[in-house]
Amino acid sequence: MAMKSPDMTAAMQAMMNPRSVAVIGATERPDASSSYVMRNLMAFGFSGTIIPVHPKADQVFGIPAIPALDRLDTPADVAVIGIGATHVLGALEAAGKAGTKAAVVLASGFAETDDEGKARQQALIEIAEKYGMAICGPNCLGLFNLSSGAALYSSTLSPNLRKGGLALLSHSGASAIALANTGRFGLSHIVSSGNSAATDIPDYLAYLASDEATRVAGVVLEAIRDPKAFSAAMQAMHAAGKPVIALRAGRSAKGSAATAAHTGALAAANEAYEAFFRRSGVIEVSDMDAFVETASLCLSLKAKPRARGVAVVGVSGGGVAHVSDIASEIGLELPELATETKAGLKVLLPAFATPQNPVDTTGIVFADGSIYARVLETLANDPSIGLIVASQDAPVGLDAGGAAEYVGIAEAVAGYARNATVPAVFMSNLSSGHHPAVRAVLDGVPVLNGTRAALTAIRNMVEPPVLRAAISPAVELAPAGDPWAKRLAAGDKLTEREAKELLASCGLRVTKERLATTADEAAAAALEIGFPVVLKIESPDILHKTEAGGVRLNIASEAEARQAFDAIMASARAYAPAAELRGVVVQEMAGRGVEALIGLVRHEPFGLGIVVGVGGVLVELVKDAAFDLLPIDRAAAEALIDRTRLGHILAGHRGAPAADREALVEAMLALSRFADHYGHLVEAVDLNPVVVFENGKGACALDALVIAVGSDLGFL
Amino acid sequence: MAMKSPDMTAAMQAMMNPRSVAVIGATERPDASSSYVMRNLMAFGFSGTIIPVHPKADQVFGIPAIPALDRLDTPADVAVIGIGATHVLGALEAAGKAGTKAAVVLASGFAETDDEGKARQQALIEIAEKYGMAICGPNCLGLFNLSSGAALYSSTLSPNLRKGGLALLSHSGASAIALANTGRFGLSHIVSSGNSAATDIPDYLAYLASDEATRVAGVVLEAIRDPKAFSAAMQAMHAAGKPVIALRAGRSAKGSAATAAHTGALAAANEAYEAFFRRSGVIEVSDMDAFVETASLCLSLKAKPRARGVAVVGVSGGGVAHVSDIASEIGLELPELATETKAGLKVLLPAFATPQNPVDTTGIVFADGSIYARVLETLANDPSIGLIVASQDAPVGLDAGGAAEYVGIAEAVAGYARNATVPAVFMSNLSSGHHPAVRAVLDGVPVLNGTRAALTAIRNMVEPPVLRAAISPAVELAPAGDPWAKRLAAGDKLTEREAKELLASCGLRVTKERLATTADEAAAAALEIGFPVVLKIESPDILHKTEAGGVRLNIASEAEARQAFDAIMASARAYAPAAELRGVVVQEMAGRGVEALIGLVRHEPFGLGIVVGVGGVLVELVKDAAFDLLPIDRAAAEALIDRTRLGHILAGHRGAPAADREALVEAMLALSRFADHYGHLVEAVDLNPVVVFENGKGACALDALVIAVGSDLGFL
Repeated sequence: MAMKSPDMTAAMQAMMNPRSVAVIGATERPDASSSYVMRNLMAFGFSGTIIPVHPKADQVFGIPAIPALDRLDTPADVAVIGIGATHVLGALEAAGKAGTKAAVVLASGFAETDDEGKARQQALIEIAEKYGMAICGPNCLGLFNLSSGAALYSSTLSPNLRKGGLALLSHSGASAIALANTGRFGLSHIVSSGNSAATDIPDYLAYLASDEATRVAGVVLEAIRDPKAFSAAMQAMHAAGKPVIALRAGRSAKGSAATAAHTGALAAANEAYEAFFRRSGVIEVSDMDAFVETASLCLSLKAKPRARGVAVVGVSGGGVAHVSDIASEIGLELPELATETKAGLKVLLPAFATPQNPVDTTGIVFADGSIYARVLETLANDPSIGLIVASQDAPVGLDAGGAAEYVGIAEAVAGYARNATVPAVFMSNLSSGHHPAVRAVLDGVPVLNGTRAALTAIRNMVEPPVLRAAISPAVELAPAGDPWAKRLAAGDKLTEREAKELLASCGLRVTKERLATTADEAAAAALEIGFPVVLKIESPDILHKTEAGGVRLNIASEAEARQAFDAIMASARAYAPAAELRGVVVQEMAGRGVEALIGLVRHEPFGLGIVVGVGGVLVELVKDAAFDLLPIDRAAAEALIDRTRLGHILAGHRGAPAADREALVEAMLALSRFADHYGHLVEAVDLNPVVVFENGKGACALDALVIAVGSDLGFL
Repeated sequence: MAMKSPDMTAAMQAMMNPRSVAVIGATERPDASSSYVMRNLMAFGFSGTIIPVHPKADQVFGIPAIPALDRLDTPADVAVIGIGATHVLGALEAAGKAGTKAAVVLASGFAETDDEGKARQQALIEIAEKYGMAICGPNCLGLFNLSSGAALYSSTLSPNLRKGGLALLSHSGASAIALANTGRFGLSHIVSSGNSAATDIPDYLAYLASDEATRVAGVVLEAIRDPKAFSAAMQAMHAAGKPVIALRAGRSAKGSAATAAHTGALAAANEAYEAFFRRSGVIEVSDMDAFVETASLCLSLKAKPRARGVAVVGVSGGGVAHVSDIASEIGLELPELATETKAGLKVLLPAFATPQNPVDTTGIVFADGSIYARVLETLANDPSIGLIVASQDAPVGLDAGGAAEYVGIAEAVAGYARNATVPAVFMSNLSSGHHPAVRAVLDGVPVLNGTRAALTAIRNMVEPPVLRAAISPAVELAPAGDPWAKRLAAGDKLTEREAKELLASCGLRVTKERLATTADEAAAAALEIGFPVVLKIESPDILHKTEAGGVRLNIASEAEARQAFDAIMASARAYAPAAELRGVVVQEMAGRGVEALIGLVRHEPFGLGIVVGVGGVLVELVKDAAFDLLPIDRAAAEALIDRTRLGHILAGHRGAPAADREALVEAMLALSRFADHYGHLVEAVDLNPVVVFENGKGACALDALVIAVGSDLGFL
């Protein structure tokens, strides 16, 4: 749903910060969802008006009731619809008619069930569009604004919940409950949006960008349906300086369709989500613990770290070694300390201690209580250090005496933190966290639990994803009358030769070649192009030419060309008797070079993406490719190359000269232009190999496959 | 230390289960380590005799003291030495003289400090050997036998510690404290062995194999010093049916620098440790949370799962999707359910539910309390399912009312578990675990926290590592008079030709080649071998022949051979004026095939290992190789090939015929035989490429490099 219409802003306001709540199907029956809603509203001291709607009763829970919404002089801001699926549409229509701009639909029985449910959900969307309504749900727990006490929420809400800066948005109700109730952070909003039929994550984020109580958004999602809306919402959140953390469920490979082109096999749907999140500046996490630690750190850091370097301090050599191991595994670099820093540590620590990052203070800090804080201050003065991790376990199972030993360490960190410009984070290796006696003295200090999740959170803070400016298409969409557009729209199967001609029209360099329909034509073409040449069968029905015996290499004379023509036609006919054989393509044999692969692959709802990587016949086995969404610019093309081993291979190796990397970049940009022009008609493109010659000698696509959307993939 | 001598068994018994403890340097001063030891012994009700040793006092803590150990009629079983490093050796000598078989040396000031400390530690080892003593430490916290109350431990021991089946052995004191006090399992022994100079992990494991109270051992280690002893101890633990879990610190470059500073010992490469652990049947974990969850599951599973398949159940679609995602990431496969199982689920669940693994029960289980247990029983009847995961969060922050909803789920699982043959594990996605009200009804049910660590523990249980029978060397060590052995022992640099000759003597197939010292000899050799040939410079000082202009390919006539000879000699002379040029090797040009790499690499203390992988010029960039320790047999060679992409490439690809995999296996076994015979003199061997021809046509090493131990690696 586009958020440009001023109506939606008011509708979202009505849903997220209502001053009046109508409860449709209000009842005192304890197990009814509307009953939970009313009791939550009252328990959390909702300051607005609660309007129970009941056909007969004149009060519910002591609050005056009305029989229908049309009895109100002023429409209610939001209607919470707590009745069964079969009655929802009628209630929604009534609410819309009465001028209510928002609704929460709790009931299950929509698209998550059967065809009838799917139809019901579609009807719900239509009512929402008709009246310009924002709708949470259906099939949801509801939402809770902790500032106003607007608890439009149909499950138990713990009184232990406290106000704070995190807005929690979740497609999954169970995940919302789990993440809301960790006790690790305060919340501004909880939204359990269920099927999210009419109103989805982008709408909530767009609202939260200007919600004063919200500093960070945490999202648990199962799919993105509207990438454009999501991107726009991310821009609003970035402009407001509010990080967005996302955990996506359903990342494992189940039921992804196979495609004929190699690139489809290399780039899975996950890569499309990752590319999208990367471009949008979303902090993606892979499990709930990383979500919790990242959210906790986001909220407890007073300012963004002023440098990217992380220093680790601990009282145990084995302990800090372990932290280093996990840091290395998750890609968090611990930089070398400056000479002055090492000198400063040498003064503080015993002679046999080694001043390096990670810092093992040794047990001296238990003997001399001031040393730990002085170590922190020394590290803080190192210009490359933006954050310090005080790695310290004090397990919950200890008794008070056992915990007391570590209270001193915690107090040293808390004392340092009071005036620090470089933040220190107190971290336990064990996810079970710290003994309460230690925790109690750590006010004002970010506390993280569990090495892996904690270091992931820290990495997310010192190297946050950057929102990339949108890249505009280089050329326009091809007009419908364009001949190639017409063929692609018809789902035609293009031969290799035709695919090359089409791509060459967008600036891609391809092999010199001619189609020969007789042996004599083959000989003449070979002579014209220049020996040696390759001969390949030309047939829209044969994809795997080599298997078909349809390829002859190293043709060095006219006689050989004639022979090869006849042999190829015979092999192909034997291999695929029903195939249409249009002749034989006579093609220049390109020189040697680095074999790369470039491709386009479609991943809805994001559209086409580009793949680049190591090419050649072993491509499916080497699997070294990088993916990004289109369109790309020069910087994006360079970054893609460097995410694969191509970067190193192109630079030259062991006496081999450097290859023409710039030509590869140009080829990728040509493919991006092709996608701007024809992409809407294309399912996939596969160029393998693109041979990258010696520096200055360019790059050339030796083979090309273009698959139109909807084309019959029945190759032989 | 070899565990064969009957003295050591008695010595270990004296240390691990003493009936009398002498405390050297006994004092009531509260911060002294010996004071902690005495107070711990008394607090834990040690049933044996405590003998304080004090020069003057006649009692310490009310216990009669003696001035020296020689005053005892019967030697004390163990002496806990709580005095400073400079006095330890004297006290140890006195203890040994007095017939005491074991000691715990608490003080720091040994190899972890400086050269004086290293010397002191060496002297300690000599005293231990002299008297046949077992010694815990130095620089350690000590050890604690929970059954007997023998708390020879110099730090606070929590009264919350409970007895149970895990023996915890740790090089790192801090890690011992953290892992001992999680409250997640009971312990038989805690051993914080510090520098482990005389007695190390293998000795403790060998003892624990027959310790009745111990069912599982958990080890936190920084290095293995004696692989043979470790293997022998692992055999004893396996024979006793006791799993061993290991967490190694210092796996990363920074981490190993930290442990080196801490212990003074450098760690060998990760691949060597992984191979060693794999062969020894060690369950290796990569962080402390995985350690805790694996130990917890080991101890709480009543029996080994009878099948490898894991089924996941949950009340939330988003939740079980997330669990599947993480299972996929960590390599835990969730199998397809049998048809009968799906049919059984279909009967129990709502019509719109999809009976598959993972199972989303939907919210119906809250309405009908019996369904959850029936789902578990249905899954348990599936023959491929050996363990069921009940995925359920009930976060600790909930209030009692909120938690109550989940108590029913927990009770269903607990009820199922009472008579179950297929175990069910109750798992929270959040590492912070379950609300106490939920936890309270789960007696008898294994409970795990944190998706990633929990699923890792489950994977470790259903696919435990197998102890591999030791592979015997195929041939004997070469006698010292063997000519090749003499040259290798002298550190000679072997040319490619010499390396091939040496390896061919062990059965490796190499290229046909001759050394030519004149252009005419080159021509004659080329004629004899058969065109085309390759010519390569022969020089012990030139390693990178291509860079030196010292290689000519495709030599197809005698005239070309003469020309190539002269050109090569001239190029090589220009490239390396100081090099010894012995002539030119005329070598057959092998046909095309799959390029593999086979090598030997040394990783102390494990010795030589073998590497196999994709070969050719891009090997350093493709980095697709597998490693195992030597010696290998046929099964190990096959397994190595299949751990790389070579397995697929050799099987043939897209029209390419299958390659002679058997010949590659033979080449690997030839290299293993070479290592049996000459390995003790060799630092590394590199065969790249080994070309594997079409099936039936064998494999041939085109290049070979043998580096002797201690050879001057100053190649030009």
